[in-house]
Amino acid sequence: MQIEIQLGPQPIDTRRALPDEFRDGTGALAEFSGLVRGEESGREIAALEYEAYSPMAERVMRELITELGRRHPCRFVRVTHRTGLVPVGAAAIHLTIAARHRAEAFAMLTEFMDRLKQDVPIWKRRALSREEFKARPNP
Amino acid sequence: MQIEIQLGPQPIDTRRALPDEFRDGTGALAEFSGLVRGEESGREIAALEYEAYSPMAERVMRELITELGRRHPCRFVRVTHRTGLVPVGAAAIHLTIAARHRAEAFAMLTEFMDRLKQDVPIWKRRALSREEFKARPNP
Repeated sequence: MQIEIQLGPQPIDTRRALPDEFRDGTGALAEFSGLVRGEESGREIAALEYEAYSPMAERVMRELITELGRRHPCRFVRVTHRTGLVPVGAAAIHLTIAARHRAEAFAMLTEFMDRLKQDVPIWKRRALSREEFKARPNP
Repeated sequence: MQIEIQLGPQPIDTRRALPDEFRDGTGALAEFSGLVRGEESGREIAALEYEAYSPMAERVMRELITELGRRHPCRFVRVTHRTGLVPVGAAAIHLTIAARHRAEAFAMLTEFMDRLKQDVPIWKRRALSREEFKARPNP
């Protein structure tokens, strides 16, 4: 199982393809994008700010996927998590999972996302209103 | 919930984006491609041939998504199923599901795929070896 973890402030390209070498033998390709919605706890927002304790977050994500892969063997798992300001409509997280059969891919996807919030040191630091987003120091 | 069903012999564009009007308000975008693998029941193959009883298959898929949407309300569900010959590495089926939260999107995806094989009149007619695939009358 090849694991790729990417964590950083760059916008996520959610259209990135599965690497060619994994296409043959893959029966199930599952992709997931977690997008920032225009509303947080009932109020309108323009962006969320994510913070991560980076080296640890990457290590814990890799360990988690390795652990889940023992029960749900996949061929390729890529997780990209954006940090810093993520505007409404953009992806904060994206997963690409390739497996022989869909059962493993779906189990990896759902269990990873459930465990991410519990175990991985990445958190929403704050929600920005339209005014705060416009007035930010480094636009 | 907007439902789009497409069934036909055209290759599936698995990179088609979510329609713009559903982007706002969507927190979870799940996509799934079911790809033809180079092996079927232990022997090497070059393609699978899918057959569908088309008007009924489209109607049953739409009913199934409507039914699942009562328990797992999503915003947009698109299912594309290819018929006829599907070569190894190409998608036989593709789903795009947009929902507010990931729980609904994941439930729609897994339950739809489980029910598809039970309820929808689309079936694998035959597996073609490399020789049969090369020798087919309409390449």
